[in-house]
Amino acid sequence: MSIRLTQTVQKGGCAAKVAAKELRKILGGVEFPPAPPELLIDGRHFDDASVHQLTPELALVSTLDFFTPIVDTPRLFGRIAATNALSDVYAMGGRPITALGILAFPIATLSNEVITEVMQGACDALKKAGATLSGGHSIDDDTLKFGLSVSGLVHPAKIWSNQGARPGDVLILTKGLGTGTLTAALKREAVTELEIKEAMDSMTSLNNAIDWLEPLGLTSAIHAATDLTGFGLLGHAMQLGRASGIDLEFRFSQIPILSGALEMIKQGFLTKAHRTNREYVDDSVDWIGSPLSDEARLLLFDPQTSGGLLLAVAPESADAVVNALPFARPIGRVNERALTHQTRIQITQ
Amino acid sequence: MSIRLTQTVQKGGCAAKVAAKELRKILGGVEFPPAPPELLIDGRHFDDASVHQLTPELALVSTLDFFTPIVDTPRLFGRIAATNALSDVYAMGGRPITALGILAFPIATLSNEVITEVMQGACDALKKAGATLSGGHSIDDDTLKFGLSVSGLVHPAKIWSNQGARPGDVLILTKGLGTGTLTAALKREAVTELEIKEAMDSMTSLNNAIDWLEPLGLTSAIHAATDLTGFGLLGHAMQLGRASGIDLEFRFSQIPILSGALEMIKQGFLTKAHRTNREYVDDSVDWIGSPLSDEARLLLFDPQTSGGLLLAVAPESADAVVNALPFARPIGRVNERALTHQTRIQITQ
Repeated sequence: MSIRLTQTVQKGGCAAKVAAKELRKILGGVEFPPAPPELLIDGRHFDDASVHQLTPELALVSTLDFFTPIVDTPRLFGRIAATNALSDVYAMGGRPITALGILAFPIATLSNEVITEVMQGACDALKKAGATLSGGHSIDDDTLKFGLSVSGLVHPAKIWSNQGARPGDVLILTKGLGTGTLTAALKREAVTELEIKEAMDSMTSLNNAIDWLEPLGLTSAIHAATDLTGFGLLGHAMQLGRASGIDLEFRFSQIPILSGALEMIKQGFLTKAHRTNREYVDDSVDWIGSPLSDEARLLLFDPQTSGGLLLAVAPESADAVVNALPFARPIGRVNERALTHQTRIQITQ
Repeated sequence: MSIRLTQTVQKGGCAAKVAAKELRKILGGVEFPPAPPELLIDGRHFDDASVHQLTPELALVSTLDFFTPIVDTPRLFGRIAATNALSDVYAMGGRPITALGILAFPIATLSNEVITEVMQGACDALKKAGATLSGGHSIDDDTLKFGLSVSGLVHPAKIWSNQGARPGDVLILTKGLGTGTLTAALKREAVTELEIKEAMDSMTSLNNAIDWLEPLGLTSAIHAATDLTGFGLLGHAMQLGRASGIDLEFRFSQIPILSGALEMIKQGFLTKAHRTNREYVDDSVDWIGSPLSDEARLLLFDPQTSGGLLLAVAPESADAVVNALPFARPIGRVNERALTHQTRIQITQ
C-alpha cells in the first residue's frame, strides 16, 4: 500500500470548504421550507450542527462533514475525517449515536484495501465515541473523499450553541492551531507524517468535552461553543460573536500552537482558505499593541481540520473547566459590544 | 444559464453508485464498532436507511444519498436528488423531518446561480415532504455533486424493512422503470428533457406512500419495502428476497415502463451499472417461458434514480393498496424458497 493519498488530490481537508462569503451569496437566493418550532438550531448562525426537538427531554443533533485526504495513511485519514465529523455533535453539547459514511473514490485506480483502511479508521473513531456506523453512500468519483453524517442526542435545555456567550466569559480552546499549514507542508513533502505527529494526534482526538465535564457538573458553565474547522480561529470566533451579540478578545501569547506551524507558514505553506478566511474576518479584527508577525496573524486564519472546541465559559468555572479538559487553555475573553451592530475581535499580544 | 449540467460529468445519478459486490469486498474487512440493541436496522441487509430506537415510541431513520447531475436543468437536478434521498426514509415507513445538504462543485467554473437553483430544487422537494433543510456541507470539487442526508421518524413497531416479506404477498411497484437508460440518452443528446418528461415527473414524485396508506389504516399491510435505486429492480428485489428469506416472481407484462425506455436500451444507451447489476443478480434469476428480448431483460437491471417503492403487501390488502397509491401496480408475488439458502427470482411473461 505505497500510495500517498495526499498526492491524489489538489486540496485537502477543511481547506477545501466553500468560503463563508460565497456560501452566503448562494444561499441568499434560496427560499427555504418553513422551519417548524421544533427546529431549535438551524444553519442561520453558522452553528456546527442543527438541533431538532423530538420530545420534551430529547433533541436530535444532525451534522455532516467530508473532505479529500489531508494525510497519506488511509486509516489515519478515515480516523481524522470521522473525528472531525463527530466534533460537530460534541460542539452542540450532544453525544453521537449513529453515523452514515460518505464515500467517493476512483474505483478503477484506488485499491479496495485503501478504502477498507479508510473505513476502519472511521470505525476506530466511532468506537471511541461510543457511536455506530449504520450505513452510508458511496460513488465512483475522480478523487477520494470521505466523511460522515452524524446523528447525536442532547437534552433540549442543555444545548451548547454559537449563541449565549456573555461578557466576562473566558474563552477556552481545546487544541492547538496549525493543521492547515502543516498538512499543506505534508502534501508538498516538506514534512513527514511522523514529523507532524503532534498535529496527527490532535486531529484524531475526540472533542468529547461533555464526557469530562458532565461528571463534574460543569456542563452548564459552557455558555457557548463551536469547533474550529475550515474558517479558522477568527472565522469561527466571529460567527460565535455575531450569534451571541458580543465582542471577543484573544491574547496571542496564550493561544496553543502546534509544533512547526509558524515555521511552515513562514516557509509559505498556505492554502486558499488562508486568504479567504482573512478576507472574511479581517475587517472585524483590531490588532492591539506591538504588531504581530505576518505568520502569527496567518495562523489565526489557518483552516483547521478536526480542530478544537472554542468554549465561552462562565468566569467562576473557567479554571475548573481548563483543569477538567485535556490540553484546554484559556486564550481570551468575551466583552460587551463596543459597536451596536457589529462584532469586533481584539487581538493582543 | 445555458450550461448543460449533464455535460459536466462522466456518469450521473445512481448509476455512479459503487457496485454491491465491490462494496461487500471493501466492507468485509472492516471491524465495525459494536452495535447497541437500540440499532434496530443497520446496513447488513441492504436496507435503505438505518433505524435507531430513541424511546419506546420513537425511532430515528437515517439515510444519505448524493450524485452527479443526471439532468441539465439545475433546479430539476436538485429536486430529483432531494426526492431520491427522501425516498429512503419513506421506504422504511418513516417520515422525514430534517435534511442536511451535501454539495460539491467547481467554484471557479460553475456560477453561484446554478448552485442556488440546485438548492432551490431541493427545498421544493423538502417543502412538499414537510421537512426542513437544517444545514449541510459544501466543498470545492472538480464536478458537481449534490444530495441530502435525511433524518426521519418512525414508530419502532411500524418499521418497513427489507425483512418481513411473506409467501403469498403481492409485490407492488409505485413507479415505472427506465430512468437509467433515459438519462443516459439525455446526456448523449438523443432525447431532450421535455421528450422524457414522464421520467422527470417520476423522479420528482415523492415516495410518500405512508401519507396515502396511513389514513386508510393500510400501513400494517406492508410486510416489507425497499426503494429502487442504483441496483435496479432485480438487484433490490434480490436484497429484499435474501433479507426476508423468500423467493420472488415477477410478471414482465405487468411491470410499468417509462415511455421510450425500451427503445433507448435498444439503441444502446446503457451505463456501467447495467452490466454490474446483471453480474450481481443474473445467477439468481430464472427466465420462465418464451424468451424475453435482451432490452426487456436489461430494463430489469436498469439503475433507477429516485425510483419507486417495491412493496410486499398482504394479499388481502393488495387491491386496496394499489388503489390508494398513485401509479402503483401489482407486478408479482412472494413465494416460499425453493432452495434453502438462496433467493431465486422467477421472471415470467
